[in-house]
Amino acid sequence: MTDIATWIDEYHKGSRFGLNGKVLLRKNSKYQEIIVIENDYYGKALMLDGCWMTSLRDEKYYHECLVHPALTSIDDKSHVLIIGGGDGGTARECVKYANIAKIDLVEIDEEVIKVSKTFLKEIGGEAWSDKRLAIHIDDGVKWVEKTKDNFYDLIFIDCSDPSEFSNLLFKDSFYKECKRILTKKGILATQSESPESFKDIHINILKTLKKIFRASETMYSFVPIYPSGIWSWTFASKEELYLSKPNCKEALIIEKGCEIWNLNFQNAAFKMMPNKIVKELNS
Amino acid sequence: MTDIATWIDEYHKGSRFGLNGKVLLRKNSKYQEIIVIENDYYGKALMLDGCWMTSLRDEKYYHECLVHPALTSIDDKSHVLIIGGGDGGTARECVKYANIAKIDLVEIDEEVIKVSKTFLKEIGGEAWSDKRLAIHIDDGVKWVEKTKDNFYDLIFIDCSDPSEFSNLLFKDSFYKECKRILTKKGILATQSESPESFKDIHINILKTLKKIFRASETMYSFVPIYPSGIWSWTFASKEELYLSKPNCKEALIIEKGCEIWNLNFQNAAFKMMPNKIVKELNS
Repeated sequence: MTDIATWIDEYHKGSRFGLNGKVLLRKNSKYQEIIVIENDYYGKALMLDGCWMTSLRDEKYYHECLVHPALTSIDDKSHVLIIGGGDGGTARECVKYANIAKIDLVEIDEEVIKVSKTFLKEIGGEAWSDKRLAIHIDDGVKWVEKTKDNFYDLIFIDCSDPSEFSNLLFKDSFYKECKRILTKKGILATQSESPESFKDIHINILKTLKKIFRASETMYSFVPIYPSGIWSWTFASKEELYLSKPNCKEALIIEKGCEIWNLNFQNAAFKMMPNKIVKELNS
Repeated sequence: MTDIATWIDEYHKGSRFGLNGKVLLRKNSKYQEIIVIENDYYGKALMLDGCWMTSLRDEKYYHECLVHPALTSIDDKSHVLIIGGGDGGTARECVKYANIAKIDLVEIDEEVIKVSKTFLKEIGGEAWSDKRLAIHIDDGVKWVEKTKDNFYDLIFIDCSDPSEFSNLLFKDSFYKECKRILTKKGILATQSESPESFKDIHINILKTLKKIFRASETMYSFVPIYPSGIWSWTFASKEELYLSKPNCKEALIIEKGCEIWNLNFQNAAFKMMPNKIVKELNS
């Protein structure tokens, strides 16, 4: 620890989770306050508007769970859309799949991409130089609205918690538009918040996706730097989902490179709904 | 928040997790510093020597996972031993089973029991007045050494992280003594630390139990107030374990009263080993 080390905390319902270290950057973009800190254990970590987004040490807990359940279970995955995901981690996991032709990454805040490329470049890794990745600085809601029907095989919603500028990403109307632009067998994959620390939002996402799509399934796993450490990801499709029966050959190759995700882990994670959430959804 | 609200933090490898609130108690016992705080979200919470032990809101994440996988999978459960567990939560989950005849709770620090009965009495709940519960203020290692062979059907090790006075609870010699005092089909159930924040201790527990017992299985789940939020519990037996095939009738009754645990959750949790731990155990 140096003399200039300090504590940066995320505050959540009477608790706080802080990282100690040297603040590498603190600035305000058009949309939010951006902080990058260098921590001895978590490595470099990114905070947006007071909330920890990712860190070099624990980012794979989040990105591997968002990406691989969807991509290992679908054959046609030519066109991929990432909404948010400015740190590049979701794109990095996507570029591991050879048969993806194009990845559109639509991030509203250009500064998040610039900061990630400068301070957290390991998170985006090879994705930043992959010719299939096209970066668009745009509003994800508007991007989806102007996309033609049945276009994307995969949509990843890799956004922060609901806020003034991300609220629309959690609305019925947005999910309906996502459904419209998905191919027939396409999958929408979204982070769906914490069943503990954001229970009401979590349950609302699950109920909304269940109402709009023919099939939806939720997996639960860990993200150490997020409030409560329990996180969820929900996958939805216009057809049946076969997330527990992925293309095994491809999945086995992918899991060799993973820190957290593997097929056993994935299949289990879809059954890790805490009993109080089971009860509330059934009530 | 009142004027006397303050932050109490647990520090772990350059991170901290803090709760805000009124400090209800701060004292030193013979063994450790004990703090009780009243937090708006987590309710009353107990810290021992700088580490959060439990809180009214999240204690069931821990206690239900330690107790029910073992107790729902074994028919003979007359004699139960709890080592540690001074907050009463493990005993509370145990007394739900009618065919338990006797529970010996062996806690080294009498103050922890006194404080829990005074400030956190909901955690022990009905157990504190259950006639089957016998409290012994003693060293768990010594208690096990003086117990006759094949005596306990269940042993729950409900202890804090390794420290000056709990180190022996993580040694080969102690686990061997536990094996000696277990009945033929008996089960040892122990918290086995975090695969993220205490990875080396976690792996050491798994390897040691695998070496000493015929069967051992590890489950992974969530404890929001513990470092990283990822926690594990390991179950070991002299015979085969059938943790995924519990006595369903009894289990279905138990799960109705649970906040986190249910049979689906349990069976999944035994497969939630992060891939990096899989790789390390196989290397």
